[in-house]
Amino acid sequence: MPVAPGRGRLRPLGLDEVRITGGFWARRRHTNATATLDHCHDWMERVGWIGNFRAAVEGRIRHDRRGREFADSDVYKLLEAMAWSGGHDTELAALAETIAPAQEPDGYLNTAFGRPGQQHRYSDLEWGHELYCYGHLIQAGVAQSRARGEGELAKIARRAADQVCAAFGPDGIEGVCGHPEIETALVELARTTGEQRYLDQAALFVERRGRHTLADPEFGRAYYQDDLPVREATVLRGHAVRALYLAAGAVDVAVETGDDDLLAAVARQWEATVARRTYLTGGMGSHHRDEAFGDDFVLPPDRAYSETCAAVASVMLSWRLLLATGDPRYADLAERTLFNVVATSPSEDGRAFFYANTLHRRRRGAVPPADAESPRAESSLRAPWFAVSCCPTNVARTLALLPAYLATADDHGIQLHQYADAEIATGGLALSVRTDYPHGGSVTVRVERTPDHPWTLSLRVPDWTRGSTARLTAPDGSCRTAPPGTAAVTQVFRPGDEIRLDLPVRPRWTAPDPRVDAVRGALAVERGPLVYCAESVDLPDGHDVDAIRTDPSTAPQDGPDDTVVVDGDAIAYDAQSDAPWPYRPLDAPAGPPAAERAGIVLVPYHSWANRGPSTMRVWLPTRGARPGSTDDR
Amino acid sequence: MPVAPGRGRLRPLGLDEVRITGGFWARRRHTNATATLDHCHDWMERVGWIGNFRAAVEGRIRHDRRGREFADSDVYKLLEAMAWSGGHDTELAALAETIAPAQEPDGYLNTAFGRPGQQHRYSDLEWGHELYCYGHLIQAGVAQSRARGEGELAKIARRAADQVCAAFGPDGIEGVCGHPEIETALVELARTTGEQRYLDQAALFVERRGRHTLADPEFGRAYYQDDLPVREATVLRGHAVRALYLAAGAVDVAVETGDDDLLAAVARQWEATVARRTYLTGGMGSHHRDEAFGDDFVLPPDRAYSETCAAVASVMLSWRLLLATGDPRYADLAERTLFNVVATSPSEDGRAFFYANTLHRRRRGAVPPADAESPRAESSLRAPWFAVSCCPTNVARTLALLPAYLATADDHGIQLHQYADAEIATGGLALSVRTDYPHGGSVTVRVERTPDHPWTLSLRVPDWTRGSTARLTAPDGSCRTAPPGTAAVTQVFRPGDEIRLDLPVRPRWTAPDPRVDAVRGALAVERGPLVYCAESVDLPDGHDVDAIRTDPSTAPQDGPDDTVVVDGDAIAYDAQSDAPWPYRPLDAPAGPPAAERAGIVLVPYHSWANRGPSTMRVWLPTRGARPGSTDDR
Repeated sequence: MPVAPGRGRLRPLGLDEVRITGGFWARRRHTNATATLDHCHDWMERVGWIGNFRAAVEGRIRHDRRGREFADSDVYKLLEAMAWSGGHDTELAALAETIAPAQEPDGYLNTAFGRPGQQHRYSDLEWGHELYCYGHLIQAGVAQSRARGEGELAKIARRAADQVCAAFGPDGIEGVCGHPEIETALVELARTTGEQRYLDQAALFVERRGRHTLADPEFGRAYYQDDLPVREATVLRGHAVRALYLAAGAVDVAVETGDDDLLAAVARQWEATVARRTYLTGGMGSHHRDEAFGDDFVLPPDRAYSETCAAVASVMLSWRLLLATGDPRYADLAERTLFNVVATSPSEDGRAFFYANTLHRRRRGAVPPADAESPRAESSLRAPWFAVSCCPTNVARTLALLPAYLATADDHGIQLHQYADAEIATGGLALSVRTDYPHGGSVTVRVERTPDHPWTLSLRVPDWTRGSTARLTAPDGSCRTAPPGTAAVTQVFRPGDEIRLDLPVRPRWTAPDPRVDAVRGALAVERGPLVYCAESVDLPDGHDVDAIRTDPSTAPQDGPDDTVVVDGDAIAYDAQSDAPWPYRPLDAPAGPPAAERAGIVLVPYHSWANRGPSTMRVWLPTRGARPGSTDDR
Repeated sequence: MPVAPGRGRLRPLGLDEVRITGGFWARRRHTNATATLDHCHDWMERVGWIGNFRAAVEGRIRHDRRGREFADSDVYKLLEAMAWSGGHDTELAALAETIAPAQEPDGYLNTAFGRPGQQHRYSDLEWGHELYCYGHLIQAGVAQSRARGEGELAKIARRAADQVCAAFGPDGIEGVCGHPEIETALVELARTTGEQRYLDQAALFVERRGRHTLADPEFGRAYYQDDLPVREATVLRGHAVRALYLAAGAVDVAVETGDDDLLAAVARQWEATVARRTYLTGGMGSHHRDEAFGDDFVLPPDRAYSETCAAVASVMLSWRLLLATGDPRYADLAERTLFNVVATSPSEDGRAFFYANTLHRRRRGAVPPADAESPRAESSLRAPWFAVSCCPTNVARTLALLPAYLATADDHGIQLHQYADAEIATGGLALSVRTDYPHGGSVTVRVERTPDHPWTLSLRVPDWTRGSTARLTAPDGSCRTAPPGTAAVTQVFRPGDEIRLDLPVRPRWTAPDPRVDAVRGALAVERGPLVYCAESVDLPDGHDVDAIRTDPSTAPQDGPDDTVVVDGDAIAYDAQSDAPWPYRPLDAPAGPPAAERAGIVLVPYHSWANRGPSTMRVWLPTRGARPGSTDDR
C-alpha cells in the first residue's frame, strides 16, 4: 500500500487486497501500464535524464548533464510507478542498476551537485532540489519494498536517507529543501523499516519550515512555505505542489507522533483552501507566474494553472487526512480531483499530457511537436514531454497505485470511498463491486466471503448528491434515502448478499460563490462527479465557445455518448462586433449582435482536446449576461 | 521636443513652445523635478548601478557589478529625464563624466559585457539587453541635444550608435535585441543629426524582427515579438513593454521612410489591441508570468499586470500615431493612460512607485521596506525602489517631457490634445489655456498673439463624452454641441479672443464588453477622464471592497474632494459565510448573508494606496449579482 500509517481512524488496504477489474479507471490503468510507463522511460532516455547517471559514473557529468536540476526525480517517479504497477520488474531492476553506481560511498546521490566542476552538495537549498529528489527516490524505494519485495532500489533509497539524516540531523545543516517532498517520504521509510530516526528527521524538517532558513526570493518566502511555521498557517499558499507535498508530510508526521495540534492545523488549512482556493475541477493553483495559489477567490478559469502535479499532491493529502479522520469530505475532493484533473492530464493513448489544466481555452493552439520538449504551461493540446516534465511520471505513479484509494478497513468493517468495478478481499472478508460509474450511479456490492458475526459496510455518499436523493438498498431489500456523507449497513452478512447504492447521476447546473469574481454571471454543468465543458468541435460551424449564452431556466439533458445538452443562444460575433473601445456608458445602446437559439453539446472535461485543436470553456455565461439585456447590469 | 518626425499630419511643439503653468500635471511635474529625480539618483548610487561605470573604468567590474543586466538603462533614463526637466544640468554633466570613460575606444559601452571575466559582447542577444541599453542612452543623448544643447552625453550616445551600426549593419551580425527600444532611439538620432545611416539601421532592426533570429524561449518567440514580422502581425502580443517600444520604433521608421504599409500595419495592431486587450485604465499587459498581453478579452482586474512602463510605452506609441495621422482617438487613449496609469504609479511625494497597476487588490499588504529593493509585482503599496526598477525612471522622463504631449501645429493652426493650464507660443501665435481639468470640464483658450489671417484652433473632444454633450463657445459667443472627435474654430482671431470648451465632467456608470469574462456582472465608475475605485479606507468599519454590491439604477453623485458616491449594499461577509465548497447546485438555497444599504464612496484610481495598506477595486459587482437573487444566474 502507498501509505501505511501506524495509527488513524481507517486502515488502508494494499494493492494485493483491492483490484480494479473494469470500467473507467481500469481502462486508464491499462493504458498507463501498457503505454505511459514505456513512454516515460523512452523519453527520459532520449532527453538524457537517465543518461545523467551513466555520465556521473563515467566522469562526464560536468559537461554532459542534461535537463533541469531536478531531472533525477522523474526517473525516481517512474521507478515508483513501475513498482506499484508491476509487469516492469526487468526495467525496474535495470534502471536501479544504472542508478546504483552513481551513489557515492556515504550515500549521497544527485547528478547535478557535488562532483568536480559542479556546485557543492547542499550549496543551493533554495533551488537545488537535492532533498526533493531524495524524497522521490525514497518513495520509489518504499514502493519496491512494499510491492515487489526488498531490492536494489530500496537499498539505494535507504543509504540516501541515512546520508540525509547525517547531513541534516539535529547537529547538521539547519536547513530545509526549497521544494518539500522529503518529509512524507521519510515518514513512509520509517513506517516500512521501523526506524525511528527517519521519522525524527521528517519531523525536524516540518518544524524547521517557515523559520526563514531559506533566502527571500522574488516570489516571497510563501513560495516555498518558509513564511510561517506549518502549525501556524491558516491556509495553503505559495507554490501549490510544494504546499501540498509539505501538508501531506506534516499529516504523516502528526499521525506517527500523535501530534493532534499539527494534524488539526493541516486540516484547517485544507478546509480554508477548499472553501476559497480550489477550482470546480478540484484543481489547485491559479497563478502561472509562480505556479502558486492565488488569494482567496482568485480562481480565473482562463488563466487557471491547476497543475497536474498539484492534483496528484492534493489527492495524496486528502487520502492521508481521510485515513487519519475518516471524514468522507476528503474522499469527495479526491474523487473530484481524480476524475477532473488527474484523468484529464493524459491523452487517450497515454502518450501526451497536460501540465496545466485550464478551465477555459480561448485559442485553438498549435499541435505540440511530437519529437521535442514543450513549454510546460502552454499546452494547447497535450504534449508528449516537457522541459520540466514532472507531470507525466506523477500521473503514472498515481494511476499505478489507484486501487489503494478505493477502500479501507477498521475494526468494524469495510469502507468504500471510490466506486469502480473491483474485487476487495481482506482478512475473512471479500467483496465484489459492480458499477458503470461515473456514467451511471448504481453501485452493487456483493458479499463474497464473510465472517459469521455482524460487521459494517460503509459507503461514501458523495457531496455532489446534495440537492438530490441517493438511496441505499440493504440485502433484505429495504430501501432508504442516503444523505451526503456515509451510508452504512451493519448486520450479519451471508455470501451472496447484495447492497446497492443508487446515486442520482443526472446533469445539473452549478453556481459559484459570488465572491469568485472571475465567473460571475456564469454557470457550470456537472454530472455525477464529472465536470462538463463546451468544446468548439461540438459547436455549429463558425460558432465559438465564447459566444455561447445558456438558459438556466431549463435543466440540462443527457445526450448520446456521455454528452449533455443545454439550451441557449449562440451569438454571431464577428470582426464587426468589436467596438473600438470595449467599455461603454451604461445607458448607451449596446448594439447586441444577433443570437440564434441553439442546443449546446457539452462533453466531460476530462475528455476535451482529444479531437484536435479546439477552444473550450467550463463556466458558461447565462443568457442574462447578453449585451444590452437588463440584467447585464 | 521628444519626437521630431520629418513628416506626418501634425507637427509637434517643443518644450520651449508649450509650458504647463498649473493644475494636476503642474503639481505632478513639480514633485517629479524636486523629488523624483533626486530620489532615483540617490537610489542608483546606493544600489551601485552608477557605480558600475566607475567599477568598469577601474577594472573592478568583474567582481563588483551590481544589479541586473539592464541596470545601465536606468541611469540613461534618469539622464533623459534630467535633460527634459532642466534644473539638473550639473548632475547631468557629472553623470555623463562618470559614464564617458567606461566607453571603449570603438564606442561599445555596457557594464555587463565584454570586459575580462564577463560574457562577450553581443553573445546573449536574447537576454543581454545591450541594444536596449543603447536605446535609452541614445534617447538621453537626443534629449540633451534638443533640450540642453550638444554636450558630452550626446557625444557618447552618437559614438555608441556608430558602434551599433558597425556591428549590426547589413554586413554585421544578423540579429536583433531581445528587448526592442533601439529602433525608436536610432530614428530620433537620425532626425537630430540628419544622418541617414541611423535610420537605415533602425529600419533593418524592424525588418529583422519576427524572423526567428532569437532562440525560442519558454514563453515562446511572441514574448519578444520574434514570432512574426512587424508588418504581418495583427495585434500586439508578448511582453507588453517590448511590443509597445517596437511598435513605436516601427511608426518612426514608417514615417521617415514613407512606408505607409508599415504605418497601417501598426495602426491596425493598435486598433485590435485597444479593442480587445486594454484595461479600462488604459493599462496593457494582463500576465504576471511573462509581463505580457493576454489573449483577446483576457483582462482580469485582480491579476492585472498593467506595468507602469507599458503605459509609458503606450503613450509613446499613441503620440507617434497621432502625429502621423491626426486621429484624436490616439490622444484619447494617451489621456486615459496618463491619468490612470502614469499618474497612478508615483506616490504623492514622488518617492515611491507602483510597478504593476492592478485594478483589484484583495489583501491589505505589508508596507514595502523604505531601505531595500522590493519585488516588482508585489507592490501592495508603492515601493521606493525595485530589484528591476525600470518604472521610476520611466515615470520621471515622461513627466519631464509631458508638456510636449499637449498641443501640435500644422499649416492651418494649432491643435490642443490634452488639457491643462498652459502657455503655448509658436511662430506668430500665442495662446493661454485655463482649466481646472480633470476636476471640472471647462477649458478656456485665450488668444494672446495672432497673425491677422484666418487660422484654425482645434480642440479634442474626448471619446469619454459619448452619451453626453460637450459644447464649444466661439469668440463671438455662439455655442454649439461638440461630438467626440475634434471641434474646430476657423476665423481671423484677435488678441483677447476666448474659445471655451465645456466637457460634461460628471460621474457615470461604465459597462464592459460581455466578452471580458473577468468583469461580467460588474460596472465601473468614471468621471471625465478618470477611472474611480472603491478603497477599503473609505468603507465603514468591518466592510470590505469585495462585499460591495452597487445599484446601477441610480446615477453616481459627486461627493466632496473629488470623491463620487454610489448607492449599493454592503454584505456582511464573515468567517461563517464560507460554504465548505464554494460551488452549489443552482436550485439549492444560497443562504445570502445579510446586506445593509450603504452609500459607497469612490476615489480617483490614481489616488489610491496613499493612506496606508488597503484593499481596492475598480469593477463593482451590481446588486443583481448578490447571492440568491434571480439574476445571479
